[in-house]
Amino acid sequence: MATIGLRKARTIIRKALEKAREMELKPLSVVVLDAGGHVIAFEREDGASPGRFDIARGKAYGAVMTGMPGSALRDRAEAQAYFVNALNGLWDGKMVPVPGGILVRDGRGNVIGAVGVTGDTSENDAIAGMAGVEAAGLTGEA
Amino acid sequence: MATIGLRKARTIIRKALEKAREMELKPLSVVVLDAGGHVIAFEREDGASPGRFDIARGKAYGAVMTGMPGSALRDRAEAQAYFVNALNGLWDGKMVPVPGGILVRDGRGNVIGAVGVTGDTSENDAIAGMAGVEAAGLTGEA
Amino acid sequence: MATIGLRKARTIIRKALEKAREMELKPLSVVVLDAGGHVIAFEREDGASPGRFDIARGKAYGAVMTGMPGSALRDRAEAQAYFVNALNGLWDGKMVPVPGGILVRDGRGNVIGAVGVTGDTSENDAIAGMAGVEAAGLTGEA
Amino acid sequence: MATIGLRKARTIIRKALEKAREMELKPLSVVVLDAGGHVIAFEREDGASPGRFDIARGKAYGAVMTGMPGSALRDRAEAQAYFVNALNGLWDGKMVPVPGGILVRDGRGNVIGAVGVTGDTSENDAIAGMAGVEAAGLTGEA
Repeated sequence: MATIGLRKARTIIRKALEKAREMELKPLSVVVLDAGGHVIAFEREDGASPGRFDIARGKAYGAVMTGMPGSALRDRAEAQAYFVNALNGLWDGKMVPVPGGILVRDGRGNVIGAVGVTGDTSENDAIAGMAGVEAAGLTGEA
Repeated sequence: MATIGLRKARTIIRKALEKAREMELKPLSVVVLDAGGHVIAFEREDGASPGRFDIARGKAYGAVMTGMPGSALRDRAEAQAYFVNALNGLWDGKMVPVPGGILVRDGRGNVIGAVGVTGDTSENDAIAGMAGVEAAGLTGEA
Repeated sequence: MATIGLRKARTIIRKALEKAREMELKPLSVVVLDAGGHVIAFEREDGASPGRFDIARGKAYGAVMTGMPGSALRDRAEAQAYFVNALNGLWDGKMVPVPGGILVRDGRGNVIGAVGVTGDTSENDAIAGMAGVEAAGLTGEA
Repeated sequence: MATIGLRKARTIIRKALEKAREMELKPLSVVVLDAGGHVIAFEREDGASPGRFDIARGKAYGAVMTGMPGSALRDRAEAQAYFVNALNGLWDGKMVPVPGGILVRDGRGNVIGAVGVTGDTSENDAIAGMAGVEAAGLTGEA
């Protein structure tokens, strides 16, 4: 598959939110982007703040545009902040370099999109997102 | 109700897409915004072009920010283009003034959000969106 | 006086909204800018759409930045749209060239600020705004 | 209540400025945003610098969009600057992560808007703003 389709995107979101409820996390927001970084699907749970679409999309966008998942972008930001700031500048500020941005690959290892999760701690966001990706039969890199 | 919640947003999207399949429209994209113009939920059907999130959100955003649905914004754009261009400039280009941007009201007539639909003709986009809004038990102004 | 002060700004807003209620207009929003185009005071009546601050400020900003009130900017936009579009581009889209943008002068004819009103028709917006300016003992040009 | 209305917004501003005068603070500027981050009311005291609307709005906007008040955003900025810089980029620079951005909740704990105060030290800005919020019968988180 070249890019995540709507059916798998729905599964990713639904299962990520189920994981969040199971872990009793704060209200989450989950976005799925295609291999080109464009939005396929999104849901923001009731009680999540209004800016969460932007944050979720920012995490996923940074991952797909660089080929680096959120944890790697965070590590890079801590080691070389001016580089990550520059990336952010390239893309009109639409990048958020912290865990919760998950690269999604198909069975052959090709990147087919990215998932962005926000609302709880970055680490918990990533756990919920990975649960969604795996439930959809895909491989995630958080 | 003060703003559309996730459950009704899901219904709006699902029923709008069902209407689209029933009408055999091109692949559609449907976004639901809250009363402040922030994204609650979105789905882009397979085969829809990558830019459709932006277009759908632009239609809904213009409606909720001005209190004028897509058909009214289109009429205004045709009568006074420079005014609608100015509105577009206020919001960093995030406004698309054509049918498919639907104002959503609760039982008391208060605006609680907006729906944006894109992918087929503007008129068909609006028909599909209105079907979704009505199936959710809400009142739409297209 | 070199610029409108907060006391007169409050009077302008209060009296403009009183006029609006007297004329039974739709909910209005009124902003007062100083001679440099910066916000001194603003009020948005309940029921006015969320984008009205931007629109009101856009009308007033265009007036004070060009020295041309809303009616003159509208006339210019109708005669030479590309020029008014260019002005808008200069100021990041923050200009709305229609009536409701009122230049405010002191007793000597110096521009000391501008008022922006939006919510009803442009013409009614201007009438309400002028009532506010005059009640504050200032001279307005709509 | 779903969002702050104009009447309470006026009270918040008036009482915050009274507190400022009582504490003999520098000239303050106070903005009130609704639950979607849109401006309801604003006042800038005479002698306050021209950029204060933007700073006040930036403090309040960051609070309402993230659900994190100014003190929490400041702590996050000190611990993870690149994350807060990224948030700022998401919203076109319209976010100021320091005390003075106050989340406002109704009696049920729902966020109904935010207040932004600037002009003196951040801590004093927050004290004045909280006085305004409490005088309006609302709960603030600074």
